[in-house]
Amino acid sequence: MPERNFADELTRRIRERRSQVVVGLDPRLERLPREITESADSPADAVLAFNRAVIDAVAEHAVAVKPQIAFYEQLGCAGMHAYAKSVRHAQERDLLVIGDGKRNDIASTAAAYAAAHLGGPGDEAAAGGDFRADAVTINPYLGSDGVRPFLQAASATGGGVFVLVKTSNASSAEVQDLEVGGCRVYERVAELVEQWGEPYRGESGYSLLGAVVGATFPRQLAALRARMPHTPFLVPGFGAQGGRVEDVAAAFDREGCGAVVNSSRGVIFAWQRPPYDEEFGEGRWREAVTAAAARMRSDLWEATS
Amino acid sequence: MPERNFADELTRRIRERRSQVVVGLDPRLERLPREITESADSPADAVLAFNRAVIDAVAEHAVAVKPQIAFYEQLGCAGMHAYAKSVRHAQERDLLVIGDGKRNDIASTAAAYAAAHLGGPGDEAAAGGDFRADAVTINPYLGSDGVRPFLQAASATGGGVFVLVKTSNASSAEVQDLEVGGCRVYERVAELVEQWGEPYRGESGYSLLGAVVGATFPRQLAALRARMPHTPFLVPGFGAQGGRVEDVAAAFDREGCGAVVNSSRGVIFAWQRPPYDEEFGEGRWREAVTAAAARMRSDLWEATS
Repeated sequence: MPERNFADELTRRIRERRSQVVVGLDPRLERLPREITESADSPADAVLAFNRAVIDAVAEHAVAVKPQIAFYEQLGCAGMHAYAKSVRHAQERDLLVIGDGKRNDIASTAAAYAAAHLGGPGDEAAAGGDFRADAVTINPYLGSDGVRPFLQAASATGGGVFVLVKTSNASSAEVQDLEVGGCRVYERVAELVEQWGEPYRGESGYSLLGAVVGATFPRQLAALRARMPHTPFLVPGFGAQGGRVEDVAAAFDREGCGAVVNSSRGVIFAWQRPPYDEEFGEGRWREAVTAAAARMRSDLWEATS
Repeated sequence: MPERNFADELTRRIRERRSQVVVGLDPRLERLPREITESADSPADAVLAFNRAVIDAVAEHAVAVKPQIAFYEQLGCAGMHAYAKSVRHAQERDLLVIGDGKRNDIASTAAAYAAAHLGGPGDEAAAGGDFRADAVTINPYLGSDGVRPFLQAASATGGGVFVLVKTSNASSAEVQDLEVGGCRVYERVAELVEQWGEPYRGESGYSLLGAVVGATFPRQLAALRARMPHTPFLVPGFGAQGGRVEDVAAAFDREGCGAVVNSSRGVIFAWQRPPYDEEFGEGRWREAVTAAAARMRSDLWEATS
């Protein structure tokens, strides 16, 4: 085991920074500030310049950023270069990086994904750790064969893993809410996650194996917290997707730890929506991003710590 | 709707080529021929050189190749370049390419993955279609919000989509076999897939929305074929993973169509295992690859058409 356990590191940072904020780096090209797009040589360059500015603007208020890998893959090889450089920039600014790829496969293939995104034994020297983040998101549909390789890599490198349990979208019910002997599929997955993570708990009491639990289903969030007392939560769906502070409060323990909350559009495009559009506008978009992150931080911290 | 429906295209190729063979391009570095690794400048170069040789060696006998994206991501940006070039080379050799990424997300994020791997409306000009394949694999855990964007992209570009239904690994039972009101989770997912694919059926009677069903559970395969009569199957787990011709026969319709079967290690590393190790050895590894693909093709075709 490495000296660092991801859950302990996350807990330490939440306490020190008094922040449970994760900023989602989902750089939709059509929404970037003109200042950025007009001075960039390519869409991938624009994405990287935008991410750097956003990271700088939120570094003081966030504990982590969560780049959504789809938006980089969409831009091809150049996009993946921008992804790699964005990850490095965030880490240089002392932010944890959660690579949101929802990867899933089995055995040696899962180990290859784990090596790509967490490093560790299977990391090929040649990759130079291009895509190496501090934590990754994964999908549980394949069972423990698809989780174990990520746990092994994370345990060896001090990384973290967040498994999808209950996602924030409306149609998540179609598979996740199916009834299985008195409970739901996602509740059974929750039990598995708590169990899989048990050998990987740190001094904080939390495991390096976390769970993704959407902010849009507050009652389920509270029930899942009870069912997974040692599992850190990554809670998406806050802000633009509808989740409010009172909806996510149940994710936290009494000290405000045990969970982080992600907002993407609500922070990175803050100047495009109330109340920041009137106060700042596109001309002062960086300040709007900082203000939105600061507001999210204080709203969450005051309500939960 | 574009003129080409992926299921029709797949059916046409199966008939013309008398082949249901998909060759999995899972280039594990430690298993590449020394001839390749010794003349390559980097691991990613070795992977690309190996893939090109394998593609040339199997082009006559396969209908498609299925690169497993994890093995390219593991090599970082250089690996993704090798992936892009491997995809192009296979298409130039008249093979369909199934990008095996098991991607999953919702709404605009899923649309970004779909644009990356299938092209279409959301495809950014700058990407140059780097990762654009003919079909992709996706994961159903997020429900229809995570499937619709892929269907829309595939429908617009003539591409195909294969949803994980029942995977070939032992622990697939942990989530996929949970009992939900008289059936299993994977059977419910099967019903959803058949239903989601209904508007996208071609002249062949099959939908561009297919299913991944492992070769290692023959009884379930037969039952799923009955449950999803209009859904083309992608069957992994053949050969090295244990699946035999008789195990996969139920996947096909009476004319030998409606399914393709993947073998990775059994073909691309054929010279490392019986009977090809003695007959060819590493010195004639290309011939071993061709022989294994030819044998798989004839074994399957004779048993199922």
